[in-house]
Formats: sequence, C-alpha cells, structure tokens
Amino acid sequence: MNGFVSFVSSGPGDPELLTVKAVNRLQNADAVLFDDLSSGPILGQAREGADLVGVGKRAGRPSPKQDHVSRLLVDYAKTGQKVVRLKSGDSGVFGRLEEEIAALRAEDIGYEIIPGVTAASAAAAAAGIPLTRRLTARRMQYITGHDVTGDLPEDLNLAALADPSATTVVYMGKRTFAGLATLLIENGLPPETPALLATGVSTPDQTLARHTVGELPDLLPAMKTPAPVLILYGPLAESE
Amino acid sequence: MNGFVSFVSSGPGDPELLTVKAVNRLQNADAVLFDDLSSGPILGQAREGADLVGVGKRAGRPSPKQDHVSRLLVDYAKTGQKVVRLKSGDSGVFGRLEEEIAALRAEDIGYEIIPGVTAASAAAAAAGIPLTRRLTARRMQYITGHDVTGDLPEDLNLAALADPSATTVVYMGKRTFAGLATLLIENGLPPETPALLATGVSTPDQTLARHTVGELPDLLPAMKTPAPVLILYGPLAESE
Repeated sequence: MNGFVSFVSSGPGDPELLTVKAVNRLQNADAVLFDDLSSGPILGQAREGADLVGVGKRAGRPSPKQDHVSRLLVDYAKTGQKVVRLKSGDSGVFGRLEEEIAALRAEDIGYEIIPGVTAASAAAAAAGIPLTRRLTARRMQYITGHDVTGDLPEDLNLAALADPSATTVVYMGKRTFAGLATLLIENGLPPETPALLATGVSTPDQTLARHTVGELPDLLPAMKTPAPVLILYGPLAESE
Repeated sequence: MNGFVSFVSSGPGDPELLTVKAVNRLQNADAVLFDDLSSGPILGQAREGADLVGVGKRAGRPSPKQDHVSRLLVDYAKTGQKVVRLKSGDSGVFGRLEEEIAALRAEDIGYEIIPGVTAASAAAAAAGIPLTRRLTARRMQYITGHDVTGDLPEDLNLAALADPSATTVVYMGKRTFAGLATLLIENGLPPETPALLATGVSTPDQTLARHTVGELPDLLPAMKTPAPVLILYGPLAESE
C-alpha cells in the first residue's frame, strides 16, 4: 500500500482556471496538501471529508520547511491514501516540485503531474495581451526574482534578460526588481521598456498597472499588497 | 449588436486539460472558430446546435489565410453572437493572437482571453519533470522553430538559447532544429545537453523520448508524425 500522489496545479487563483482534470483529482482525493497560495475557494472543490492539510508556504517568505513538506507527503501516501499535492500556478514552474518528487522516488511512491495555467499566462490574458508576437517578440522567458537566500540570484544571464525583443516575466520580484532593473539597464535594456505590474492575478484582488522598467524601482517599495507580484516586461507589455 | 469574442485556450489536446472556464465558454457559445490543432474531442464540449467553423491552420504549414480568419471572426461577432475563438495550447503563446485582437479592436468588438495550459507544461508534466529547479535551472524560455517564412528566425539570441543552465522549449522545431542545434553548439551549449522530444502531448498519440541536443539532428528527419513536435532541452530534460 504505497499510495499515490497527484501533483495538481491550481492555476493562478480563480477556481475556474483549474483544469477539468485538476477538479476531478480534488474531488477524488483522500487528502489534499496545500500551500497558502493555492487555498481559498479552490479547496472548496475537494470532496467533503477529505483531509485538508496546509503546509504553509507564503509569498515572499523563505520556506525552511521544505523537508517537512516532503516528509508529510510521503507519510500521507504511505497510508495508502489518494493524495493531492496542490501547488499554485503550474506546478512545474518555480514550484520546487523536484524536491518533493525526489522524496517520493526514494520511497517508491507513484505520482503524476497535472499541468496548469501559470500566472504569467493569466496576467497577460487579463491585460488583453499575448506573450509572443510574430516577427517582433518571439522569445519569452520566466525567472524568479529571488534565490533561496531571498536575494537576486547571482548567476543571471543578463544577455538573455536585457534582450529588448523578448517578453520576460519575473515571478516574486517585488523586493529585488529594483536591483535587477539597474543591471538590465546597464546591460542595454532601454529604461522605457514597457512593463506590466500584476498582483493577485485572476483573484478578486487583482490589480494590473502599466509602467516602464525604469519607473518600477520607485513604485515597488510603496506596494503594500500581500498578494504575489508578477512583473512582465518587453514590447508586448504596452499592447492595447 | 457588436457581439463578443472569447479567445479560449484549448490546452495541449486532452479535453481534461481544458480549464473549467474554457468548458463554460464552449458550452455557451453560438459559434466556435477552431484550428485543426484544437479540434477533435475538445469540440465535443460545445453545445449542440452551435456553429463549428474550422479555420484550417495545421502544424508545420504556413498559414496564408490569417487575414481571412480575422475577417471571419469579425463577421461572426458582428451578427451579435457569442463567439469562441478556440486556440490550441495557451492562446497567448505563439498563437498569433495579436493579429486577431487588432482586427476586433478596429471594429470595436469586445473580447476576453481565457488562458490555458501550454504544451511545454504538459510535456514536462507527462515526462515527470519540472520546468525549473531551485539553484540549478532558474530560467525557462520558449521559442518557435520557424518564422513566417518557415525557416529558423534570423534574430535568435544565441547567448540566451545556448545557456546550459536554462530550460528551453522549442515549439514547432521539427524541420529547423538541426540548424538551431549547430548554432547552439557553436555558441557553447554542450552537445550532450539532455533533450526531451515530445509529440502529440496529452493525446492518445503522445510520444516522449529522451535524447541529447547533439543526437536530435539525425533523428528528426526520420519522424513521420503529423502531430506537433516539441523539443525541451536543458539539465532538467534528463530528470527521472
């Protein structure tokens, strides 16, 4: 009785942006382990009587308890239950999925990954813009704004990130984008590059604002939102 | 009576990877304009009696009729109908969305974009791997394998694409990846970089195979599949 774990991508926040498969898995789970970011109305899809277990990761805070989460996941699965590990956005994108997968493999527990809608797609859709454009914006890229220490990662590929023709999305960049913007501009990205600043994408608290890369460093510190902040920059950020 | 257009992302192919919102829009549409790639069982979600209109874009062929598609979309919307424009994957990613949006704006027709699961997320999920990894693979990027002429785009950012620590996904690269691989290797990407070759992601015809970037140029010409081919390379492609 080794159980089985479904890594279910919860999408950006709107329960309607769950996939049909994600809803099915939630409705059939014996236990649902969720992060704070994927909670709220989405958990309402779980069947009555399922164990709902918060594992407490929050935006902008370090997550020292990753080992604990993996341990918990293994323990639930070993009881033979159908376990859903609910992860916000697309579980494969900045979800630290590999650490939990490694823990399951070490114990020979089966798993599947249900892909989902990542916050970048939902932010662009909400702003009415595409992420790519024929002829002029044919590469898109995602990075996180911080590494495990909470600071800007040291090994940034600035030739990639300062490319004015790409669409770049920075997840969790509220605290570190000012430093990144300086590096980008030093590496040739025009400060007037359009930028979309999105918070709480697809939730009732959603905000979308259009600025430029050069303007964001002065604006970000004043933002009081507890919701995750997503920054999208590149030529398409000014569409519409 | 200007109508309204919902750009609905159909996901990679499995109808269960539609979002709940996408299913709702399909069930309420008066007319559904679909590409060949987003057809099949997904269209079965539309309500009986809805107009189902194929607009005929196929993988690997040029799409000379984009203007015609935009015209058709405007014409349907102007009758006051609720129109769904169904696009494969995530509609904002390599979907030529901007051309259809521009046509609607020119006629003052309202629209919304329903984001979806892009093929890269579904391919990685099916292969049991994440797209990003803490510490070692923190940037992911998508490109198309061809420009409007059907050839490899000329303005590739090779410093970005030859980065051995990124996860890179090439959409529609079957015909041009051999040329790209040569450029990548010339620019410092090790030929032994792991690569995942995926076709028909999330459909009954799905295939997943693990190779290296250096091996793919000899393998791709022999592939007879009519399904779209997706190539993912980078350190994570060898996980599991």
